[in-house]
Amino acid sequence: LKIEIQQPVLAANNRIADTLEAAFRQHGILAVNLISSPGAGKTTLLEQTIQQLKSCLPLAVIVGDVQTEKDAARLRRQGVPAVQITTQGACHLDAHMVQQVLPRLSLSGLRLLFIENVGNLVCPAAFRLGEGLRVCLLSVTEGHDKPSKYPAVFLAADVLVITKLDLLPYTDFDLGEAVTSAHKLNPRLEVFPLSAKTKEGFAAWVDFIYRRATE
Amino acid sequence: LKIEIQQPVLAANNRIADTLEAAFRQHGILAVNLISSPGAGKTTLLEQTIQQLKSCLPLAVIVGDVQTEKDAARLRRQGVPAVQITTQGACHLDAHMVQQVLPRLSLSGLRLLFIENVGNLVCPAAFRLGEGLRVCLLSVTEGHDKPSKYPAVFLAADVLVITKLDLLPYTDFDLGEAVTSAHKLNPRLEVFPLSAKTKEGFAAWVDFIYRRATE
Repeated sequence: LKIEIQQPVLAANNRIADTLEAAFRQHGILAVNLISSPGAGKTTLLEQTIQQLKSCLPLAVIVGDVQTEKDAARLRRQGVPAVQITTQGACHLDAHMVQQVLPRLSLSGLRLLFIENVGNLVCPAAFRLGEGLRVCLLSVTEGHDKPSKYPAVFLAADVLVITKLDLLPYTDFDLGEAVTSAHKLNPRLEVFPLSAKTKEGFAAWVDFIYRRATE
Repeated sequence: LKIEIQQPVLAANNRIADTLEAAFRQHGILAVNLISSPGAGKTTLLEQTIQQLKSCLPLAVIVGDVQTEKDAARLRRQGVPAVQITTQGACHLDAHMVQQVLPRLSLSGLRLLFIENVGNLVCPAAFRLGEGLRVCLLSVTEGHDKPSKYPAVFLAADVLVITKLDLLPYTDFDLGEAVTSAHKLNPRLEVFPLSAKTKEGFAAWVDFIYRRATE
């Protein structure tokens, strides 16, 4: 039953995602799909990344949430266009939702588009949004066992950002074990351990995004 | 489309959940459905709760995970029966999955059954498992804005356990704000802030579960 329902849904999503991917490529835009559990720090990462990149690169944000407009409001304070998708209960963004709000952004001249997914480490993995880069966040407070327990999202990601590194001394998170088990699933994963609070590791992440958006 | 697919699925789930609820009531078992994001500390809470209650109450655990048998193995080390449901990608437990593994537990004589859901703050909210008590966990590292951003799970819960209280000084989590916004959604929510590390607040939670299982 599950497969019968999901296959046509995913096929329809992939068709729209292909259209979005072509549009992003045509405009020279790097679209970045950010996926993590609730509270892993997606909005904070975006706030600070945008702060550092907004003067160098024309960028915009699409923010998905189950309820509330809070995150888009937070990001608009950075002075960049931010469009909120409120999914009304749905547990992930899909390509159709992104396609629907895209006319509210001016794609011409844009170089970087962040798409912050709904906080969920399971469901968003299956839904391509036309992104050129898929970034998964894992906070050290979540535990180093998460890649093996929630493999789909790590398998389908290009980048793993390990957040809240400043809290590492207060947890039993094993950074080596987390990276090893993520690489066992997906050897091509680029890993950036960082803290948005102390800025440790932050420059490497920002440089990486800048390079990918301008290459 | 979403509603057309979901309504029959939820109706079918509710029918099985009613059957489970009746079975639990008949055997005098308190079934507790634990819901949270990945890494909020469900398994750690269970380990320590079981350690304190296992000599007073006959109890068992059902553990849901997308992949791996790790959690059931962790809990079996406490010397209590623990059955793993590996959902193979599905983002929540449903009543049918619980019904299928129930024959592997001996219900007679049992007083307390913990059901640890898949780590997901969105999808498990809609799926009753026949539980007498629904417990939602929120760790202080996830942020106090989560009740308003993910309301469904807080609306449908009986208890909110706020975990990792030992990390409170290292975060900007506002405990009062978290409790207020959770109570705004659901005034009858019982709230237990605690730390599994320092044991602060732990006794109140264990007492509460003991009382509910024996009343």
